[in-house]
Amino acid sequence: MDRRTIFFVSDQTGITAETLGQSLLTQFNGVDFKRVVLPFLNTHEKAEEAKEQINRCFQSEGVKPVVFCTFTDDEIRDVIKGSDCACFDFFETFISPLEKVLGQSSSHATGQSHGMVDVSTYNTRIDAVNFALKNDDGADVSHYDDADIILVGVSRSGKTPTCLYLALQFGINAANYPLTEEDLDLLVLPPALKKHKKKLYGLTIDPNHLQRIRQERRPDSRYSSLRQCVKEVDMAEDLLQLNQLPFLNTTTVSIEEISTTILQEAGLQRHLY
Amino acid sequence: MDRRTIFFVSDQTGITAETLGQSLLTQFNGVDFKRVVLPFLNTHEKAEEAKEQINRCFQSEGVKPVVFCTFTDDEIRDVIKGSDCACFDFFETFISPLEKVLGQSSSHATGQSHGMVDVSTYNTRIDAVNFALKNDDGADVSHYDDADIILVGVSRSGKTPTCLYLALQFGINAANYPLTEEDLDLLVLPPALKKHKKKLYGLTIDPNHLQRIRQERRPDSRYSSLRQCVKEVDMAEDLLQLNQLPFLNTTTVSIEEISTTILQEAGLQRHLY
Repeated sequence: MDRRTIFFVSDQTGITAETLGQSLLTQFNGVDFKRVVLPFLNTHEKAEEAKEQINRCFQSEGVKPVVFCTFTDDEIRDVIKGSDCACFDFFETFISPLEKVLGQSSSHATGQSHGMVDVSTYNTRIDAVNFALKNDDGADVSHYDDADIILVGVSRSGKTPTCLYLALQFGINAANYPLTEEDLDLLVLPPALKKHKKKLYGLTIDPNHLQRIRQERRPDSRYSSLRQCVKEVDMAEDLLQLNQLPFLNTTTVSIEEISTTILQEAGLQRHLY
Repeated sequence: MDRRTIFFVSDQTGITAETLGQSLLTQFNGVDFKRVVLPFLNTHEKAEEAKEQINRCFQSEGVKPVVFCTFTDDEIRDVIKGSDCACFDFFETFISPLEKVLGQSSSHATGQSHGMVDVSTYNTRIDAVNFALKNDDGADVSHYDDADIILVGVSRSGKTPTCLYLALQFGINAANYPLTEEDLDLLVLPPALKKHKKKLYGLTIDPNHLQRIRQERRPDSRYSSLRQCVKEVDMAEDLLQLNQLPFLNTTTVSIEEISTTILQEAGLQRHLY
């Protein structure tokens, strides 16, 4: 298999360069990529150091590394472009056509993305993280008025990571409530949930997969037995269907896909941080 | 101020399109952007619906909306490109030059990025989230052997959101320990931390900013008094300096910037999910 070193370089966090670069690389299965991230190259000196590192990589591997970058400063970008690499700069490629479309010059300012631009927006996000933590696992059901969404499902169906992702990436107030055996036996929604039926979204999971997850958590317990997993999942799906609640099977779905699906189906405004 | 509607469209989550699009838009301060995200456009029918929505937008606003997209399917992309918009497709722009550089054809497969590609990598991430939750706020100091990094700082200096971000986005095992008044009075690191000095990273914060954050949490308490905030921050910085621990002031820094800085300074391998 071919090998290739990939550099993600930026005058800021490099998260934009890494996000788009990784998306592109997933389209090439036949190459073994070695990834190097060089963030905060915001001076000539740092850019020169990075250039040397890229050149050393070329010399030792005999093939030009690929560099994905997002520089707003043309001079710093030129330093990197002067190295022995195949360079793709996302800003350079799109800023100029975008200036034409918008009829405006770009600000060429660094630190705009993934940075602390707007304190109030930023606080929204931190508040959302705190909301998710406080309203995790049904520990406290008294703040559901402030929730944008309430995830329901059996223990270990993916509720907590999804709530945290919704909070951190989208500033969404996401609570979650684990359906207990008692709730399931009665086949009725607990009163705290019934009051907020429009905010409820169910997560379900393949019982075999659930069994493996629970087995790691509490090995060889009733909780992690396949019989128990099958029973809980069956009853949870019955309860969700009976109440005509939307739900999603999380077995082969990533946190990003779960979160995006929920936001879309619940009609929630999405704004990525 | 000019107004413009921006569509982020994708056959998958749209997160890549949104990340790069937003980065580009932050370079244009003079335009008021209205954002619309249309994810999961993975059939002709859905693409046609999106096309109509984009065309309706053009008709009502009299100016062509900007569309950022990441389609791997050329036919679906062509539907969107046939609408009345200024279309920037990140994949179309870069895949072909990247194929030349890598000497390989791209797979044109959807669902590769932000999707469930590799179950074991995915479990690493979920395990990291669980690790962050279990090792939050010094509640349990018995798993620090498994930590990649341990954040220390006074209450509300940004430790918890940073740990969660490190876990969710990078799969890093991040614990955090709040420096208590007792620790600070003694001016010594608690034994649990001393054992893991190489993993420690300090977060500090401007006392006035800390006061405002704490005031929201516990109004008019000793905890949220400026006197207390100044005292704790001073002592915490003394303790960090005395132990020659690296630390960062989080006052005007985003979670992404804090996380990226920590990973870089601690020399931790970074792999964005």
